[in-house]
Amino acid sequence: MMIDMIRAADARLQGYKRVTPLLSSPFLDGIAGRRVLVKAECLQHTGSFKFRGAFSAISALSDTDRAKGILAFSSGNHAQGVAMAAKLHNVPATIIMPADAPVIKIDNTRALGAEVILYDRDREDRDEIGERLEAERGLTLVRPFDDLQVIAGQGTTGLEIATQAAELGITKAQVLVCCGGGGLTSGIATALAADAPNMRVSPVEPNGFDDTARSLADGERRFNNQTSGSICDAIVTPAPGNLTFPIMRDLCSRGFAVSDDQALMAVKLAFQRLKIVLEPGGAVALAAALFHPEVTGDTVIAVASGGNIDDAMFARALDMKI
Amino acid sequence: MMIDMIRAADARLQGYKRVTPLLSSPFLDGIAGRRVLVKAECLQHTGSFKFRGAFSAISALSDTDRAKGILAFSSGNHAQGVAMAAKLHNVPATIIMPADAPVIKIDNTRALGAEVILYDRDREDRDEIGERLEAERGLTLVRPFDDLQVIAGQGTTGLEIATQAAELGITKAQVLVCCGGGGLTSGIATALAADAPNMRVSPVEPNGFDDTARSLADGERRFNNQTSGSICDAIVTPAPGNLTFPIMRDLCSRGFAVSDDQALMAVKLAFQRLKIVLEPGGAVALAAALFHPEVTGDTVIAVASGGNIDDAMFARALDMKI
Repeated sequence: MMIDMIRAADARLQGYKRVTPLLSSPFLDGIAGRRVLVKAECLQHTGSFKFRGAFSAISALSDTDRAKGILAFSSGNHAQGVAMAAKLHNVPATIIMPADAPVIKIDNTRALGAEVILYDRDREDRDEIGERLEAERGLTLVRPFDDLQVIAGQGTTGLEIATQAAELGITKAQVLVCCGGGGLTSGIATALAADAPNMRVSPVEPNGFDDTARSLADGERRFNNQTSGSICDAIVTPAPGNLTFPIMRDLCSRGFAVSDDQALMAVKLAFQRLKIVLEPGGAVALAAALFHPEVTGDTVIAVASGGNIDDAMFARALDMKI
Repeated sequence: MMIDMIRAADARLQGYKRVTPLLSSPFLDGIAGRRVLVKAECLQHTGSFKFRGAFSAISALSDTDRAKGILAFSSGNHAQGVAMAAKLHNVPATIIMPADAPVIKIDNTRALGAEVILYDRDREDRDEIGERLEAERGLTLVRPFDDLQVIAGQGTTGLEIATQAAELGITKAQVLVCCGGGGLTSGIATALAADAPNMRVSPVEPNGFDDTARSLADGERRFNNQTSGSICDAIVTPAPGNLTFPIMRDLCSRGFAVSDDQALMAVKLAFQRLKIVLEPGGAVALAAALFHPEVTGDTVIAVASGGNIDDAMFARALDMKI
């Protein structure tokens, strides 16, 4: 059972994960016209929820496999999460990143002790590079979302939400989750179905990259027409995962999508009102909570999934008029 | 006993205060050359630790006094803390603020339901205005630091630090606290003397406004030569308090001072590495942890006391070269 895997991952993560706070501000409540709680996963180690899934997957390996080392593909947050989780397990990590990934993310991944291999998105096949490394070095691939132990790790966020909301007397809410491949969304949906069954979970995506929302509407996996072109790079994936989609189809409500400007306004409001730093892709759930006309209910819990933003993009958010 | 007042304040604050996280980053450890933990009080309600002291003081009043309403003087963070704490107690708050206080702080205080009375720093006597309001309306003044119940509220931060550090296996550390009048510093020092007696507590101030450091060195209260001119406006006070200074003299180690540029670099590093928003005055303790050559020991805990910063000042911090 997925929920048992989440609870087991939570036990392995004890003392390693950060229990991130559930924040709020009367100013955000006023904008949304309802109570807004923000699960600040940007405060997780390495600045995003990805640490949870990476640690869960690495800690679930056999000692023999783990010792040979870890491999991951990532344009950023997953890379840093895997690098840090591997470091805590004292095992080598090799990360394959696109050469055009934000410099800060490449540098951070290296500084966390990982070997970074850059590839050209347009001319090289990252899967081929990865398969070669798996074969040559005996590395184990940690997938960004379509892996049960990764989903289990992300789901620990949901266990915390259930506990923290209950402490505030909240058992019923619309839970909005920034969604790329669906690892975080499916994990949280599973955890809440068990521990807070009156909460509804919805994925939130950028306009034009709403593969999960369309997949949920159609009942089968749909793909985006484009693969790049959003400032919400952290959550742009071609389609929901083979493992994550069935979970979301069973447990999630409809998806929402927001504009880049709405994401940037949410970044600015999180800065002003919550004193946290979000990247655009980590702010889409809060953007939907604040601005989407079809979000309903008395209470919304928005998962702020990451904060790895460049100075220039943050300055752009601060320039938004609100 | 002060420690008993802190524990009582902590009990009154249960369910109202936010237990702020103790954050860290291997990148900050690398800069400091030691382990750095950051108590993120910027994530407290209203963006600073001031909420704790204000709530403590208001909750300790008799029902009769509380019902008549609350009065405070403040250029910002104390004002917002008092306004929010008064709102939670459903009592009116009147806040006397200098007319040149940051607009965002004035607006926020009003939005939290307080009546704001502005005065001219150069031509009006705020104490005279306050005394008139106390007499006319029967309001109770909540002092920003020189009040035992306020100190008790701020001290709850220290109880949390002791617990959170112990969970990480840390019982010995240099604790650095952003210091204005000394309410937070004296409260934390009292709490840690009881619950984590191997920790040393030091106040940190801006260069040129190091009244507390000089007072500790001389064994008696010293005043600053100037009353304004620092970007760390939140922690500029003429001298340590009559109540806070004896506590700090008994329990604190030497004080430290940092430059405005060091404070701004700490703001930028907290943005990059911890994903939290600090104001310069709330970042001086982290600045000392990262940059002060005379800070020693294996572990430093820096209290990041507030995050109410204007967009323009934050942009200035982001422009710092590190």
